[in-house]
Amino acid sequence: DIAGATALLHWDQETYMPVKGIIHRSRQLATLSTIYHQKLTDKKIKKLLEEAAPKTIEDKALVREFKRGYDKATKLPDRLISEMVEATSVGLEAWKQARAEKKFSLFQKPLERILKLKLEETELVGYKESPYDALLDDYEPDLTAKKVTAIFEPLRAEIVASLPKILKNQKTPAKKYLTGQHFPLDKAKKATETILAKMGYDFEAGRQDLSTHPFTTNFGIKDVRVTNRFDPQNFQSSIYSAVHEGGHGLYEMGISEKLMNTFLAGGTSLGIHESQSRMWENLIGRSLPFWQYWTPYLQGIFHSQLVGATPEKLFKEVNLVKPDFIRVEADEVTYNLHIILRFEIERDLMEGKFLVSDLPEVWNIKFKNMFGLDVPNDSLGVLQDIHWSQGSIGYFPTYTLGNLYSAQFFRQMPNMNNHIASGNFEPILLWLRKNI
Amino acid sequence: DIAGATALLHWDQETYMPVKGIIHRSRQLATLSTIYHQKLTDKKIKKLLEEAAPKTIEDKALVREFKRGYDKATKLPDRLISEMVEATSVGLEAWKQARAEKKFSLFQKPLERILKLKLEETELVGYKESPYDALLDDYEPDLTAKKVTAIFEPLRAEIVASLPKILKNQKTPAKKYLTGQHFPLDKAKKATETILAKMGYDFEAGRQDLSTHPFTTNFGIKDVRVTNRFDPQNFQSSIYSAVHEGGHGLYEMGISEKLMNTFLAGGTSLGIHESQSRMWENLIGRSLPFWQYWTPYLQGIFHSQLVGATPEKLFKEVNLVKPDFIRVEADEVTYNLHIILRFEIERDLMEGKFLVSDLPEVWNIKFKNMFGLDVPNDSLGVLQDIHWSQGSIGYFPTYTLGNLYSAQFFRQMPNMNNHIASGNFEPILLWLRKNI
Repeated sequence: DIAGATALLHWDQETYMPVKGIIHRSRQLATLSTIYHQKLTDKKIKKLLEEAAPKTIEDKALVREFKRGYDKATKLPDRLISEMVEATSVGLEAWKQARAEKKFSLFQKPLERILKLKLEETELVGYKESPYDALLDDYEPDLTAKKVTAIFEPLRAEIVASLPKILKNQKTPAKKYLTGQHFPLDKAKKATETILAKMGYDFEAGRQDLSTHPFTTNFGIKDVRVTNRFDPQNFQSSIYSAVHEGGHGLYEMGISEKLMNTFLAGGTSLGIHESQSRMWENLIGRSLPFWQYWTPYLQGIFHSQLVGATPEKLFKEVNLVKPDFIRVEADEVTYNLHIILRFEIERDLMEGKFLVSDLPEVWNIKFKNMFGLDVPNDSLGVLQDIHWSQGSIGYFPTYTLGNLYSAQFFRQMPNMNNHIASGNFEPILLWLRKNI
Repeated sequence: DIAGATALLHWDQETYMPVKGIIHRSRQLATLSTIYHQKLTDKKIKKLLEEAAPKTIEDKALVREFKRGYDKATKLPDRLISEMVEATSVGLEAWKQARAEKKFSLFQKPLERILKLKLEETELVGYKESPYDALLDDYEPDLTAKKVTAIFEPLRAEIVASLPKILKNQKTPAKKYLTGQHFPLDKAKKATETILAKMGYDFEAGRQDLSTHPFTTNFGIKDVRVTNRFDPQNFQSSIYSAVHEGGHGLYEMGISEKLMNTFLAGGTSLGIHESQSRMWENLIGRSLPFWQYWTPYLQGIFHSQLVGATPEKLFKEVNLVKPDFIRVEADEVTYNLHIILRFEIERDLMEGKFLVSDLPEVWNIKFKNMFGLDVPNDSLGVLQDIHWSQGSIGYFPTYTLGNLYSAQFFRQMPNMNNHIASGNFEPILLWLRKNI
């Protein structure tokens, strides 16, 4: 219940909160986080966990996961929790301003403070090899920097080898439909909600609101909300944000009612969570059958913008590969390079191989290396992502893990192309709910 | 902070929460209310209050009000608090359904449970004469049924004597502008927000959203939100809801930053709170100068709807007196009769003079007596107000007390008519912030 209220405080901060409300919101978040931590580390819990004799598979998993959460939480003092909440609250505002002004220097000190607290956290939690391992474990249990490196290295080599061939063989389309034309907000929002509903997203247990950065949150399995942004010149981005966040949302909505309000609600891991969002976004949403179904519907709403568009043309348009600066706008091929870059930087930062003040330089050199491009300013480089300002270090690898999981899952699914082409998304959802 | 988070949970429930989310929301509210109560009644608080040696006027008031809250809270067990939260959560949903189906019987059992808990509360809190006194005190400190009766009886006599004369002398206007014509939602919403901003309502520290019943809430003095409803056929109602809730909002926004996050923020009493909302609504908002200023602005937005409208015509239209069933739509004259009716019923119900099951009959007889009208169904009678479903018994008198306070305050204010007619609302706000 406290976690649900906390999530609502966050959701409101990103959607509707008036700007001056931040002064209260930071305190409210710090207070609720501290109470949550106190409740979780209550001495009674230890005794209850010791006495627990779970029999069913659910109960066993519940005790195991509760114990994992309890063990970690008891290692962290209340003081660290509330300091982190305050540091990330300051960090978020500093990051916003720094990004707006394209000046990393405005974010440096707040990030240094966050990093210091995260390092303290890793020492308290403990790790075998790299302090980064203690953080990875928050998002993907038992994952280590070593394991990630072993997965990412060959992937990187493969992408770097394939990219020039793809770019060489790729034809630039004569006309782009989904970007560079005006799509009015109200119609664009309604269209994305029609797509979400068709995917199986339940609008009686959720809603789509506007925020600067799309995200999914929930206050329980019957209240799972997504957000989106609507740049009138980039409808493509809004479609794929809706489908991506919808994938997260469907995963949460599909959690068994038996697990409601327990530690087992919320998904197996962030990587598995991302496998759902990235599968809907890329393997379903960027497929030709997807556009075979949705092109006529969208043409019914956006007559003038989509004159002459065909499923084939839109399919090619949304799959164009183009190395560029921004991760969230990246194509499927270069996306993983963005992640690998962030992983290496996070890991090395946590291992003390360079300082926060070195970040822009490290970023820009690595980016040039991987993408062959010069980063023109910090907002198109090291400042583009919200994650570090929120203390989310170790999160990035889950995106690529999600991609890799999703490719394997999708390969196991019976041929879905006919269903997708006829707008019959139910068998997909049923398969996912049964197997994932 | 916990109270602020709780208020956000309530706000979201009334504005954006998807329907199935109620299952989580009830639990979240119960949990946070219980934690709030536990913190307030912590043994350390008693010691701190005993040791407190306040010197400044603010500190003395703070200790006094904290002690008042502490003394009351310690008399109520945690169990009663969480039972009440659950009972009112069920009560709200039952009331909504009963009102939709016009059947009091659907609300009877949940209301009986709430009443039982409220009676238990009055016995634990204690009172001298009437159990109703223990509840009045929550909204208007030290108020008693006896005092209210002494104020309301002569008021009632005066209104009942004046009403026929008013009705006899009043001319029905040839045409109504603000009701019975279509005012589109988006323009109507924008117009009310322009009015709110002109009153001095700070949209960087607040916002207006849609809800079934207009209300004001806050999560601190820098985040004070109002809601409104927009029936396209009743723009008048939306204007006066905005001005009314705006009055509440301005009062909260005007609280000194020194008092932020203390027991002294939130206004002196509900009656004084209502004096602010009712003054803005009736004494300012229903004045001729108000319409002299706003008529041209509104005609600029609503051309066809307001052709031929003049400040004088609109002034008369919004001041029409007409005895009718619904309190929140009532004119200034009959409004207090609605309150007196509810006061008598609440008081007698708490004193055991009749049962919950008698409520519709008692209501309808009293209404016929005071208004000369037969109540056609429960939704136009005993089911119209949300208050009892929320356990708010003893709240209603504060509306009429607010009217009486506001008339006295307004009489003390230097002549404001010129300011209002020229759209200069700042002197009003300055006077109120200095004196109230």
